[in-house]
Amino acid sequence: MDTIYSDGYPIFFENAVDELTAFIKNGKYSRVFILVDENTSVHCLPIVQDKLGNADNYDIIEINAGEECKNIDFCIGVWKMLIDFGADRKALMVNLGGGVITDMGGFAASTYKRGIDFVQVPTTLLSQVDASVGGKTGIDVDSVKNIIGTFTQPKAVFIDYDFLQTLPPRQILSGLAEMLKHGLILDASYWNQLKQADLHNPPAELIHASVILKNKVVMEDPTEQNIRKSLNFGHTIGHAVETWSLTHDGDPLTHGEAIAIGMLCEAYLAYKRTGLSKNELDEIQFVIGGLYQHYSLNPAMYEDVYNIMLKDKKNIDGKINCTLLNRIGEFNIDNFFEKEELFEALDYYAGL
Amino acid sequence: MDTIYSDGYPIFFENAVDELTAFIKNGKYSRVFILVDENTSVHCLPIVQDKLGNADNYDIIEINAGEECKNIDFCIGVWKMLIDFGADRKALMVNLGGGVITDMGGFAASTYKRGIDFVQVPTTLLSQVDASVGGKTGIDVDSVKNIIGTFTQPKAVFIDYDFLQTLPPRQILSGLAEMLKHGLILDASYWNQLKQADLHNPPAELIHASVILKNKVVMEDPTEQNIRKSLNFGHTIGHAVETWSLTHDGDPLTHGEAIAIGMLCEAYLAYKRTGLSKNELDEIQFVIGGLYQHYSLNPAMYEDVYNIMLKDKKNIDGKINCTLLNRIGEFNIDNFFEKEELFEALDYYAGL
Ligand SMILES: NC(=O)c1ccc[n+]([C@@H]2O[C@H](COP(=O)([O-])OP(=O)(O)OC[C@H]3O[C@@H](n4cnc5c(N)ncnc54)[C@H](O)[C@@H]3O)[C@@H](O)[C@H]2O)c1
Ligand SMILES: NC(=O)c1ccc[n+]([C@@H]2O[C@H](COP(=O)([O-])OP(=O)(O)OC[C@H]3O[C@@H](n4cnc5c(N)ncnc54)[C@H](O)[C@@H]3O)[C@@H](O)[C@H]2O)c1
Ligand SMILES: [Zn+2]
Ligand SMILES: [Zn+2]
Repeated sequence: MDTIYSDGYPIFFENAVDELTAFIKNGKYSRVFILVDENTSVHCLPIVQDKLGNADNYDIIEINAGEECKNIDFCIGVWKMLIDFGADRKALMVNLGGGVITDMGGFAASTYKRGIDFVQVPTTLLSQVDASVGGKTGIDVDSVKNIIGTFTQPKAVFIDYDFLQTLPPRQILSGLAEMLKHGLILDASYWNQLKQADLHNPPAELIHASVILKNKVVMEDPTEQNIRKSLNFGHTIGHAVETWSLTHDGDPLTHGEAIAIGMLCEAYLAYKRTGLSKNELDEIQFVIGGLYQHYSLNPAMYEDVYNIMLKDKKNIDGKINCTLLNRIGEFNIDNFFEKEELFEALDYYAGL
Repeated sequence: MDTIYSDGYPIFFENAVDELTAFIKNGKYSRVFILVDENTSVHCLPIVQDKLGNADNYDIIEINAGEECKNIDFCIGVWKMLIDFGADRKALMVNLGGGVITDMGGFAASTYKRGIDFVQVPTTLLSQVDASVGGKTGIDVDSVKNIIGTFTQPKAVFIDYDFLQTLPPRQILSGLAEMLKHGLILDASYWNQLKQADLHNPPAELIHASVILKNKVVMEDPTEQNIRKSLNFGHTIGHAVETWSLTHDGDPLTHGEAIAIGMLCEAYLAYKRTGLSKNELDEIQFVIGGLYQHYSLNPAMYEDVYNIMLKDKKNIDGKINCTLLNRIGEFNIDNFFEKEELFEALDYYAGL
């Protein structure tokens, strides 16, 4: 699996942890800080430390796990650790974890002393195929997601398949939703490969292919004018359902589970609006429906979900903006919908 | 006074408040936020509002005045106001105040939704000749100055001389130190003009000239590799004395007052090390000594001041890095000093 080149930095796949340790050892960094959460500290850090050997110029910064920690208080904690450790401008930050660690560590590093170098070592499938590419860093404030952040590229990304061995199955499925999305919006033959694979253990090559697809999109449209909007497929409705679930369910949906719901609803809208065939709609439903447990959507929650969608920054004049498909492998941006049509899409999912 | 062009943005001088209101009215911004502190709210905001007339698409965000407010807590307050007001990516932030407002407002804007547009409207002499040019934004954490920030250019800078009418005399002198510095390091004829002017009311043309000098430096060396280091003249010792004063004096030195002390000490080092003539040293002492009240440096505090200098990021191997002068108008970077030589420079000042 070839190294992928993004906006000025490499994304390593083969022997990625070896590449990481070489990068750390050869880099002229005054000190190295490895940011982990309580889970990657147990499951991933030993793998890195094993290869680092007795290199002694690094410190560990550990935070709690979970989206609720991706906030300004934990970020201040990270900054203060850097201050206490006397980190100077030549320090390196290694973000070893899922999207929470790569987003928050990237933000902390991009603002410490107006920016120190950082590298991303994504350890969840979601962060490998999505969060680690594109240069977005961020934290949540007042539970508004990613409201504070920067566009800053890492010096390198190291994607090691082995980290996924300890990842819980629900987290695999969460990242898988983005891989399915990449196929649906961009590449029918990749979608066909996915259909034939064991998607509960997605093979390394398909992860690599997914990163190539995402990287192509963000390289062509870094500022989200047009084709980068393709990545929103499934996310208008999916994100609203995710937010609803977070505030109402004891065991809320993961991001990918919600996006799976969103993709089904929006595939239905594509069938109604942009020419997706009934056959292809059924195929998408068959594949996604076979992977993710059905979630019960109750008409009593539709208004709430709609109100969440109304806050979406992509809307115009109160109409909801969705990225759809013309067919599998071809996206169609900036489709606007009224409430009734969205409710019909939710009904479609609810009736499956 | 011509508009100055910096790294992609204009710095307006003539009728700057008119230019600002035109910028606001013609810009296609969804909403405008004017950040002020309790003083600029009284002294500067009415001048802007007067010209804005009944334009109604702006909100005011007011914070307390003073360096102690340039911290992450106030910054979170600004972010939350933006969230509460529903600021989107097309919002504009107008930072109307001294360096505290322009630094913190610039940081808040450069990170809100990964960056919204902002403009700087500096209202102190220091912020007009120094803080508003160069793209540095920042806040203090745990009273470590400017430890968190970004390099982000504003969309424009508006420097209006009229704002200075309400500025207390000590604040004029504070900014004046940077103007004197610009002459000493870069331009002997500018230094001569300053000598002949009424420096308690520096004329607009000399402010304009000072911004041209600073802008030239930051444009030539945006990443502080070489000539931008010239701006550190007076700051190695000056900044240490400032920090000492902040933690020990009831009415601490302003930044410029401390830099004035630092420039005298470092001019002495230049006389000892880099060939500044005795005549020029005396001239610098005559000019600066005539403007700033003498501050009593006590040998008992030298160790403390030295320990503060040791934390300076420009040091190498525990030796203290100073920018000096070859002669008036010509700087000389990366001169390293031992403790004894620095104490001698402090003695020189103490004996004046
Ligand atoms: N920057 C971007 O472009 C981008 C794109 C997509 C998502 N994101 C962000 O990513 C975040 C979600 O990412 P995520 O799903 O990786 O969340 P996460 O970082 O919370 O990881 C999920 C869980 O898996 C655990 N974990 C991580 N690696 C493990 C491993 N190898 N073995 C066992 N457990 C492991 C974590 O501790 C956590 O409990 C969100 O905050 C989202 O906003 C960012
Ligand atoms: N970004 C940079 O490159 C850069 C360069 C130099 C200094 N700075 C920063 O600038 C800050 C110091 O700037 P400052 O001296 O302007 O401080 P400041 O913003 O605290 O202003 C000084 C005082 O003057 C008041 N004031 C401002 N305008 C006024 C007016 N027109 N009339 C009456 N009162 C007025 C303020 O309320 C404050 O009390 C420091 O935090 C420093 O780090 C930044
Ligand atoms: Zn997603
Ligand atoms: Zn200064």
